[in-house]
Amino acid sequence: MEIEKTNRINALFEFYEPLLTHKQMDYLAQYYRDDYSLGEIAENYGVSRQAVYDNIKRTEKILEEYESKLHLYANFQHNAQNIDNLLAYIAQNYPEDQKLNELAHKLESIEE
Amino acid sequence: MEIEKTNRINALFEFYEPLLTHKQMDYLAQYYRDDYSLGEIAENYGVSRQAVYDNIKRTEKILEEYESKLHLYANFQHNAQNIDNLLAYIAQNYPEDQKLNELAHKLESIEE
Repeated sequence: MEIEKTNRINALFEFYEPLLTHKQMDYLAQYYRDDYSLGEIAENYGVSRQAVYDNIKRTEKILEEYESKLHLYANFQHNAQNIDNLLAYIAQNYPEDQKLNELAHKLESIEE
Repeated sequence: MEIEKTNRINALFEFYEPLLTHKQMDYLAQYYRDDYSLGEIAENYGVSRQAVYDNIKRTEKILEEYESKLHLYANFQHNAQNIDNLLAYIAQNYPEDQKLNELAHKLESIEE
């Protein structure tokens, strides 16, 4: 499995997991997050390997459709970069201003 | 119509509009955004007042369900407050630091 694709699906999963069904969540988590094989997941659930494969492919498509509509992952990456740049500048130039550092670090919750 | 509810539905609509069907979008926009009456919308679409009412109620429920799962509006309000606090502090204490102000104002895109 390509590492880039795995990372992307895992990231989209973080954002859109609440919109999936339990079965979609379970299969995807076992395959991408826990690195089980299609065969192992099929055995765990007593279904065919093809059924697991089809479900995972469909779920990947659903995640990409949500991202194309809501852009949560793309926005997150954009915001995280801007916040990191600001925090680095403040750490370097105003390390002694406690209030400024406190206000700036509150923004890190956006990255979570 | 209560102004608080109107504001909330309009806000949720901003975040989750891409997840609605065209009909859901149309009815909701005319009722909440453009302030048409149920009767006027019914006439525009050649359907019963009750059909428009049912559709709008269902769409409101869908919006609240998305919010209960993804919290985009709640997160937005939280982030916007933190960003405003930081911007106000910087404007007051470091108005001359152009780089700091530039980095901080880039965060305003989070509020959009």
